[in-house]
Amino acid sequence: MASKGAPAAGKLWGGRFTGGLDPIMQQYNESIYFDRAFYSQDIRGSIAYARANTKNGILTQQEFSEIERGFKQVSKEWQDGTFEINPGVDEDIHTANERRLGEIIGKEIGGKLHTGRSRNDQVATDMRLWLRDQLDQLESYLVDFLKVIAARAEQEIEHVMPGYTHLQRAQPIRWSHWMLMYGSFFAADLQRLRELKFRVNKLPLGCGALAGNPFNIDRDAMAKELGFDGLIMNSMAGVADRDFVVETMQWGSMLMMHMSRWAEDLIIYSSGEFSFVKLADAYSTGSSLMPQKKNPDSLELLRGKAGRAFGQMSGLMMSVKGIPSTYNKDLQESVEPLLDHVKTVGDSLQIATGVLSTLAILPNNMLKSLTPDMLATDLADYLVRKGVPFRETHHISGQVVALAEKESRPMDQLSFEQLEGVDKRFEKDVLKVFDYQKSVEMRSAKGGTSRSAVMEQIEAVKKALAGEA
Amino acid sequence: MASKGAPAAGKLWGGRFTGGLDPIMQQYNESIYFDRAFYSQDIRGSIAYARANTKNGILTQQEFSEIERGFKQVSKEWQDGTFEINPGVDEDIHTANERRLGEIIGKEIGGKLHTGRSRNDQVATDMRLWLRDQLDQLESYLVDFLKVIAARAEQEIEHVMPGYTHLQRAQPIRWSHWMLMYGSFFAADLQRLRELKFRVNKLPLGCGALAGNPFNIDRDAMAKELGFDGLIMNSMAGVADRDFVVETMQWGSMLMMHMSRWAEDLIIYSSGEFSFVKLADAYSTGSSLMPQKKNPDSLELLRGKAGRAFGQMSGLMMSVKGIPSTYNKDLQESVEPLLDHVKTVGDSLQIATGVLSTLAILPNNMLKSLTPDMLATDLADYLVRKGVPFRETHHISGQVVALAEKESRPMDQLSFEQLEGVDKRFEKDVLKVFDYQKSVEMRSAKGGTSRSAVMEQIEAVKKALAGEA
Amino acid sequence: MASKGAPAAGKLWGGRFTGGLDPIMQQYNESIYFDRAFYSQDIRGSIAYARANTKNGILTQQEFSEIERGFKQVSKEWQDGTFEINPGVDEDIHTANERRLGEIIGKEIGGKLHTGRSRNDQVATDMRLWLRDQLDQLESYLVDFLKVIAARAEQEIEHVMPGYTHLQRAQPIRWSHWMLMYGSFFAADLQRLRELKFRVNKLPLGCGALAGNPFNIDRDAMAKELGFDGLIMNSMAGVADRDFVVETMQWGSMLMMHMSRWAEDLIIYSSGEFSFVKLADAYSTGSSLMPQKKNPDSLELLRGKAGRAFGQMSGLMMSVKGIPSTYNKDLQESVEPLLDHVKTVGDSLQIATGVLSTLAILPNNMLKSLTPDMLATDLADYLVRKGVPFRETHHISGQVVALAEKESRPMDQLSFEQLEGVDKRFEKDVLKVFDYQKSVEMRSAKGGTSRSAVMEQIEAVKKALAGEA
Amino acid sequence: MASKGAPAAGKLWGGRFTGGLDPIMQQYNESIYFDRAFYSQDIRGSIAYARANTKNGILTQQEFSEIERGFKQVSKEWQDGTFEINPGVDEDIHTANERRLGEIIGKEIGGKLHTGRSRNDQVATDMRLWLRDQLDQLESYLVDFLKVIAARAEQEIEHVMPGYTHLQRAQPIRWSHWMLMYGSFFAADLQRLRELKFRVNKLPLGCGALAGNPFNIDRDAMAKELGFDGLIMNSMAGVADRDFVVETMQWGSMLMMHMSRWAEDLIIYSSGEFSFVKLADAYSTGSSLMPQKKNPDSLELLRGKAGRAFGQMSGLMMSVKGIPSTYNKDLQESVEPLLDHVKTVGDSLQIATGVLSTLAILPNNMLKSLTPDMLATDLADYLVRKGVPFRETHHISGQVVALAEKESRPMDQLSFEQLEGVDKRFEKDVLKVFDYQKSVEMRSAKGGTSRSAVMEQIEAVKKALAGEA
Repeated sequence: MASKGAPAAGKLWGGRFTGGLDPIMQQYNESIYFDRAFYSQDIRGSIAYARANTKNGILTQQEFSEIERGFKQVSKEWQDGTFEINPGVDEDIHTANERRLGEIIGKEIGGKLHTGRSRNDQVATDMRLWLRDQLDQLESYLVDFLKVIAARAEQEIEHVMPGYTHLQRAQPIRWSHWMLMYGSFFAADLQRLRELKFRVNKLPLGCGALAGNPFNIDRDAMAKELGFDGLIMNSMAGVADRDFVVETMQWGSMLMMHMSRWAEDLIIYSSGEFSFVKLADAYSTGSSLMPQKKNPDSLELLRGKAGRAFGQMSGLMMSVKGIPSTYNKDLQESVEPLLDHVKTVGDSLQIATGVLSTLAILPNNMLKSLTPDMLATDLADYLVRKGVPFRETHHISGQVVALAEKESRPMDQLSFEQLEGVDKRFEKDVLKVFDYQKSVEMRSAKGGTSRSAVMEQIEAVKKALAGEA
Repeated sequence: MASKGAPAAGKLWGGRFTGGLDPIMQQYNESIYFDRAFYSQDIRGSIAYARANTKNGILTQQEFSEIERGFKQVSKEWQDGTFEINPGVDEDIHTANERRLGEIIGKEIGGKLHTGRSRNDQVATDMRLWLRDQLDQLESYLVDFLKVIAARAEQEIEHVMPGYTHLQRAQPIRWSHWMLMYGSFFAADLQRLRELKFRVNKLPLGCGALAGNPFNIDRDAMAKELGFDGLIMNSMAGVADRDFVVETMQWGSMLMMHMSRWAEDLIIYSSGEFSFVKLADAYSTGSSLMPQKKNPDSLELLRGKAGRAFGQMSGLMMSVKGIPSTYNKDLQESVEPLLDHVKTVGDSLQIATGVLSTLAILPNNMLKSLTPDMLATDLADYLVRKGVPFRETHHISGQVVALAEKESRPMDQLSFEQLEGVDKRFEKDVLKVFDYQKSVEMRSAKGGTSRSAVMEQIEAVKKALAGEA
Repeated sequence: MASKGAPAAGKLWGGRFTGGLDPIMQQYNESIYFDRAFYSQDIRGSIAYARANTKNGILTQQEFSEIERGFKQVSKEWQDGTFEINPGVDEDIHTANERRLGEIIGKEIGGKLHTGRSRNDQVATDMRLWLRDQLDQLESYLVDFLKVIAARAEQEIEHVMPGYTHLQRAQPIRWSHWMLMYGSFFAADLQRLRELKFRVNKLPLGCGALAGNPFNIDRDAMAKELGFDGLIMNSMAGVADRDFVVETMQWGSMLMMHMSRWAEDLIIYSSGEFSFVKLADAYSTGSSLMPQKKNPDSLELLRGKAGRAFGQMSGLMMSVKGIPSTYNKDLQESVEPLLDHVKTVGDSLQIATGVLSTLAILPNNMLKSLTPDMLATDLADYLVRKGVPFRETHHISGQVVALAEKESRPMDQLSFEQLEGVDKRFEKDVLKVFDYQKSVEMRSAKGGTSRSAVMEQIEAVKKALAGEA
Repeated sequence: MASKGAPAAGKLWGGRFTGGLDPIMQQYNESIYFDRAFYSQDIRGSIAYARANTKNGILTQQEFSEIERGFKQVSKEWQDGTFEINPGVDEDIHTANERRLGEIIGKEIGGKLHTGRSRNDQVATDMRLWLRDQLDQLESYLVDFLKVIAARAEQEIEHVMPGYTHLQRAQPIRWSHWMLMYGSFFAADLQRLRELKFRVNKLPLGCGALAGNPFNIDRDAMAKELGFDGLIMNSMAGVADRDFVVETMQWGSMLMMHMSRWAEDLIIYSSGEFSFVKLADAYSTGSSLMPQKKNPDSLELLRGKAGRAFGQMSGLMMSVKGIPSTYNKDLQESVEPLLDHVKTVGDSLQIATGVLSTLAILPNNMLKSLTPDMLATDLADYLVRKGVPFRETHHISGQVVALAEKESRPMDQLSFEQLEGVDKRFEKDVLKVFDYQKSVEMRSAKGGTSRSAVMEQIEAVKKALAGEA
């Protein structure tokens, strides 16, 4: 019924494919060169699967012991770097491990391993096991970073610097307050990570190709052995679902978005014009042309890699969005990006921790960058305390700003008479307004810049580390 | 010090702007035509703010009462549609509300409202209040949808259909099992939504422009009055943060990704070639050219709008990623996408609920599409039960498939002798394998297709609705 | 054959839909409230279509005249704002226009208009017509912007400022050189736009629903009448294709990416610490809290809207990627984003032109920010001219930088003896190296900072405007 | 002035970094393990650069010969796989090549190579050279694919199949017509590629770090030697610009979007329910669990990799969008995605060519899937030819469809009397309408399904290959 002479033998367009083989297809299709990252998870899962199949009579205890012995050897070969991938045969880690197992313990027993299982539930299990452990690692990196933030914030609480909105000098803040803003963002990342891990850590094994397991395997026992928090409760969902990868990448790309903003601030602060901070040499590089240059490459890479992490998330969402239900080979496209994503986020957290741990700050430059007009709001607030409506005080203070500009002198060097000329309600004590330390101390409501408010934030970060917030 | 004659008077490029005004800039900058959506939240927040400023002496009780009275009228004007926006003056909802308040109660008192507050913390408060309520609404739509899934799954549990992987017929499943796969996805969306709401529902009010509140305002009291679960604990974070929008959109775009896959399945199932389901007329449309057409427009829109939701998330992430800390005007770009995102997700959930509620299924067509080769795995399993290693049974069953193909007859119409010819270990009872109902019942391990396993999944969905999973 | 009692009458999940109507579905499906933007294109296309159908005998000349007369009235009603949309009936602009036409000229003739046509080819025609004209408009905005760049670059060529890499001071450049970098980017945008327009401007009319026109309509004649550059040559492609929208958005989001970088530079340059430029009041805004603030809102919006434009492109690509061939309703999701995208890009170009036209520069501050170590490369080049290998001169110059740092004095204030102490090959004329004007003039190779090289770039921009590059 | 004891010696957070080295930073920063892909381009560029520096006196002819000789050896070492990367020293390909050159020809001469050059202009040159050649390769793959489309379309023009809109059977089309729809999309990709190449193929060498070349190097001569079409005309743009990568990825992700739709169609057509086509074994895989399965993995990978390609584009756009002007290290993030992008697109084009070249079609199944109601439009057109307004004929034909449904018989098996019962204007010849071949032949307007119209499209594709369209 097919078109005559199919598949296209002797036709114009069939020439290259007469042998029924396309070498490009082989490498396009195979995953062994990246999913080998899951070799140990694949083996752990297989052992748990075999053990469960012993209880329901598929395997004898003796067969199970053989399988376990065989896998120990396979595992050792991977560890030692002696595992030999059979090109064109070992298309993925599952095939490779089972092939090698069969060589070690014989195909009679080895051939029973895959009973009732599919690579569909197997790969999902491998990925979740691997990711779960990686997320634990990422959590520890994130905790380390937050600890450095909290420790520096506590130790350097006295330093005052300009706070910016719209990158324009706005009001004085503490340097610690700046660090704790990011502490707040990263603490939320930590909270999200802990929630995410719970969803990742569900067992799909026992879902088969899509319809479940026909030998009544005890999935709860497997979950317990492998340390999962529960089961994927629908076998089709078990093989169809890469949400745990998407959600990881959503999490990671939001974290990297924070990292990018953090890096952007520090890049600006380390420019010659700002000069608030100085990166350690370990996190800077020079120029091949310009002898005087010292560039914040670490920060720029952090900022740039936020794009990379986002791209991985976007790409996978597009791939998953475009498929019907259950397993489709498109899902293989989740693996490489995941491996790189986890590495990117993990490296970035360590780099950021290193950068912040070794960063020198230049408090005198911070002070020099403060200007009296940043206290214009304090000046308005002064009149508020005298009972003048804020909208009016805002206007009066604006007039003082304009006067200072007109007189070409800083606002705090206007005479009392000049101030009085703007508004009669100014009294002598107004001059005390022009004090940056006082300004930050005034903001003592929760979340503000006063010493006590900042200390309270440090406690909040510490609580977040302990999972209490 | 500026270039002579600045700003560019009389220069080639300055002609259009001599008046110091650019009408395009006005509309490029103003947000009133979309942030008016927050009018009531803006007023609620202002009243709470004023009440708190009464306790710390900024306002008298009398002044507060006036403010409250004034805002009641402003609110009524919005509700009645009589609020008159002052073009070019009311650039945003905060300005509009305060301007109108001043007209009603006088500027002396009205001018005190904004003391210690900035539009930066105000808009963040408005958005969170609004979003929190919207998320409650979305939760109720999602719960409704899940209820329909659970109810249909329970009622139509007897129907068997082909299950697909790679869009190729794979194994028989229950129609309910298909629905519950999506039940599993959407139940995870529900869980994520509940976690998300907790992070959205934090109060930024009292953060000021970036440095906090200088009048020791009681932020906890405001949070309590407004029903927030807690405070944003760093004032710079309070104004810098649009993560609550990003996270909402990450959530929404994942939900829509599920919706797209669900719709894609149903579009395929409602094609002429599949004909498993038939959409109600209310969710279909005809063709302007082809009289016979009935198109699943509702499903296609669901699928298409997944891209829209994703685009909003992507766009906002790019905007936020590219800015330094605290408030930058770029953040205004979060508002319009958020309004549309929430509407898109909400409408889509309701449409999906309507589609599923009124969907007719055609169980006979489902049955007709089942083919005996879908039981090839069951045939292999049959021999597994006789002790043959699975890898061997897989091969034997493959030979039977090939034989059937060669004989041009369905596998279940091969004679026992033909089966025996393939492998001697087949016994007469092998013919009982060719039974789709039996096949689905065999998969009784958790998550499988057997009646009991499916019923258990339905219970899991119900528990998820109750927040127990 | 459908499940008993379908569609779900009396069932738990069918309650809301007994009437066969879902009001949410109506608004979810209809497009009239945004595709009315195409009303005049829809009418122009219909008239051309009717004229072509006159030649092949579908319509008499008399009928055509009636149709033309009718449409003139419809068009006038839209222009006058008197067209009354019939809610729930006029689901899209095509339906609305044809419905109204029928009311005016009678259904006997009006009912002939749609012969052989489908809304599938009709909407594609409307969109391409509309977009083509919009792209002409965008081109003129882009040309205006480039003209301002070229004019300022020419007029302000004498001003020298620091050039940055990694946001670190690198080498002196001309202010004009900075502007012309963006001139280069935007000129490429112009070139791409002109290529893009050619692909947009192809006629899909006559493709029918997907299979073409059965009345041998003269598509070339329609193309000519409507000003198209050619035909979409496959009828299925004609209705399936939204690439012209995707490509427009790829173009627009790249342009906005340039805009974002341009805005980012200017935001940094207008910070208090840099103070190189000062925005006109028309493009700045103040703070509701801080009287002294002047914020570059226009630039921040330009930067933020780059995300918006990108999000529209991303979302549409996801929607289109996820569909099979020909028309699917998902494609309706291309319309709203396109409308907003074109407006966003057009407004942004006008804002940018306004900002640059009125921007004051502060050349003294630019000069003050130059530091002698930015001439370290010139110092190395000095020795290169004496025959010392560059790698060695780079090292020597680095030692001079270190010496200056150690001595806490600018490099140009080291004594000749100090320089000689570092390397004997320095001669007295070395001190002439420390001259910023000389430094920029030295870079006279094409593309460099010398006056002649910059003038040549200005010519290149002018040629690009004329389409010669 | 730095904080006491900086960089953080002995502090809580400085522990790990006492040695001033962070091994993670080294690998985070270095690019040699991927930019070695450019080794030959880097050498070609350096030779051209050295030659140009001979003309302006920086190098003697003798020195140039040495450099050329040295690079020949370096090049050979890379080709032979004997080049030894010096870990921690050779951070990128530029450093590695120059380091090795110096070892071969001595540092005295080798040290002159980099005079006036920066890695900033060097890497941009390498990338453009590499990409230009890759795009030539991609063009040839794309041309091959289009040739197969055109050849099959010509050879198999007789086969008729259902055409779909909304995945619902719409009207009969030719199988060739379906192929040519994609021919139309891919021909546009070809046109875009040719335009893109022109923009990629511009020389940045001679731009230095950002300010240009101080030795009046002849950039035009270098461009000529290296085969570039022209220069980047602003030195800051030369180092800042990764638009050529972004544009390549926009192009590639649009091509892959087409590929995904193409694959999606074929996946559906190869499902059991459709069975229009059958993939060659070379492009299919089996199941580890289900013996009967044959899965279209090649097509699913094509579809899935569309997401990957899009993700790379999205990620890079986000990275580039978020930086100020000129070179920032973020731009390093363009390299790895580009390498993978080009490979992904190239492999995918070859796979698609292989799939289509070897695809078997099942014309009988295509015919069987045609249903008489797909001729409802032809039935309406029949009455149009009798002078009945289309809107009325559409309605009448709809009544016939309904009657056939009510009678449970195909439309073409209604009796003439039954048709006449619906509308008196039907005459005996109406029965001739029910002919699929006739239906496709009727659509003879340009772009339609008639044989001549299809042949014309084939010619159009051929012209596109020759660059004539």
